[in-house]
Amino acid sequence: MDAKVTAGPAAKALLDDLFANGLLFPSGVDGLYGRSGTFEEVIERFEAAVSKLGDVDNAERIHFPPGMARATLEKSGYLKSFPQLAGCVHSFMGGEAEHAQLLAKITAGDDWSELQDATDVCLTPAACYPLYPTVAARGALPEEGKLFDLKSYCFRHEPSQDPARMQLFRMREYVRIGTPEQVQSFRRSWLERGQGLINSLGLPCHVDLANDPFFGRAGKMLANNQRDSGLKFELLIPITSEEKPTACLSFNYHQDHFGSLWKLQFADGTPAHSGCVGFGLERVAIALFKHHGPDPKRWPAAVRKVLWG
Amino acid sequence: MDAKVTAGPAAKALLDDLFANGLLFPSGVDGLYGRSGTFEEVIERFEAAVSKLGDVDNAERIHFPPGMARATLEKSGYLKSFPQLAGCVHSFMGGEAEHAQLLAKITAGDDWSELQDATDVCLTPAACYPLYPTVAARGALPEEGKLFDLKSYCFRHEPSQDPARMQLFRMREYVRIGTPEQVQSFRRSWLERGQGLINSLGLPCHVDLANDPFFGRAGKMLANNQRDSGLKFELLIPITSEEKPTACLSFNYHQDHFGSLWKLQFADGTPAHSGCVGFGLERVAIALFKHHGPDPKRWPAAVRKVLWG
Repeated sequence: MDAKVTAGPAAKALLDDLFANGLLFPSGVDGLYGRSGTFEEVIERFEAAVSKLGDVDNAERIHFPPGMARATLEKSGYLKSFPQLAGCVHSFMGGEAEHAQLLAKITAGDDWSELQDATDVCLTPAACYPLYPTVAARGALPEEGKLFDLKSYCFRHEPSQDPARMQLFRMREYVRIGTPEQVQSFRRSWLERGQGLINSLGLPCHVDLANDPFFGRAGKMLANNQRDSGLKFELLIPITSEEKPTACLSFNYHQDHFGSLWKLQFADGTPAHSGCVGFGLERVAIALFKHHGPDPKRWPAAVRKVLWG
Repeated sequence: MDAKVTAGPAAKALLDDLFANGLLFPSGVDGLYGRSGTFEEVIERFEAAVSKLGDVDNAERIHFPPGMARATLEKSGYLKSFPQLAGCVHSFMGGEAEHAQLLAKITAGDDWSELQDATDVCLTPAACYPLYPTVAARGALPEEGKLFDLKSYCFRHEPSQDPARMQLFRMREYVRIGTPEQVQSFRRSWLERGQGLINSLGLPCHVDLANDPFFGRAGKMLANNQRDSGLKFELLIPITSEEKPTACLSFNYHQDHFGSLWKLQFADGTPAHSGCVGFGLERVAIALFKHHGPDPKRWPAAVRKVLWG
């Protein structure tokens, strides 16, 4: 049984509003919800607005399923930094006798998880994790580097009643792989585009330096280093709190972390740098519903124009 | 480590072709692949063609993430019928000492799965499983019943080198909940529409009675009963074998199985019947690439017209 992350009263009230307005549907598990057709349409229209900004750069689109190879996640270092958030898929691999045990345990309400074994599949924690080995398999990078357009469901094990903190959510990402200059110039352009887009949607926002929630005491040092080196910026929108606004976009510079790890390199053997801009699609949709109301038909005309043209 | 389901040489050759043409990308795990932008566009255009047929019926669209509540999957009976295909999400819930053990095991290449515990999340095995409790929570069904439009990533633990048998794949579904007559009339209409659509795409197909791969010896009886009662039809397209064509659409009549289980009922207390038509989106896309070639720009004009208008 999961430990519950506590959400403040404003977050719980927003979740109840989203349920009451038929935009989200409860599943019995915190952070796991059905979405209405209206909710989906807002996500689709926001994505189209993102694409309109990004299309000029001719990114290569690749789509990955919500699961990735366990070996890739192990090698990526994710389990070193965020073991508490990762999810791995276990399946029943027994015969008829073990199946009888499994059914008896379910009937009795007992834990049957030990009758499952780990598969080779883990859930994807961020859209770009499966990308790096895929690109490395192609051989040396061209001089101009590469740009990718990704979208994936992501899993993070942090059950919460804050609707802006789901366990399964979608992340749209552009990922730039190239020289330090190419990656930093990409990040600068999206810092500007991202703020422009969110402002055009009538949402208050600001950009700040940030750090990831690295695990444990050693993680504090990693977090400080990430912040001091300016590797992560977030675009924050107040959703249920002015003091603790919600990160809806993030702008990350990985230096040569993934380039060295996966031997992503230029023809002369120099490891590539990488960076990404990520859009938390459910978070942006929820920010729009919170600030403009549950019915998109009644949103301000300027906002509707950006989304519906 | 996963046991491998053997795929025939024609299936392996098709997978290699899809890799060589840059339509799918390997992940190191059988049944888990990246998809190219072209592959995604074919899926999107096929879905649009499905919507065009289905839109006349005014279905309510609901979107569920690729995971569902474990309690719902347990209650659904799925683990009784298909325990071997289900996937449950396990996560690390320990402290710093356990984390050190986890990292040591990964470094040594040892199994670290026992350092994880079962979460409340399972992977969705078919798009409609999370729907029934969601609809039941709304109270009595209206006399005319309900129609839903769903799409979800689904997981089935059956690693294989047959590209038409992925572990993570997308299923589009229409689900009809109502009287036996309403559900059977819905199914009849989609049996006709489905064949018409696949024919219009220049793909050979036929419809046949079918049964699900129920587990174990007792499962044989369930399979025979499902077949004898005409509860499941499949639309089959030859992809890598003429003798064993691939089920790309399925047309299912659940009788009152889900209605009774979830107390989905009309105002007078009669349990609802349900049925669904499911479209295996990756399978249809692969059938199109197999029959018409890797470049959609060179597909027959009539096929392009159905998909691109």
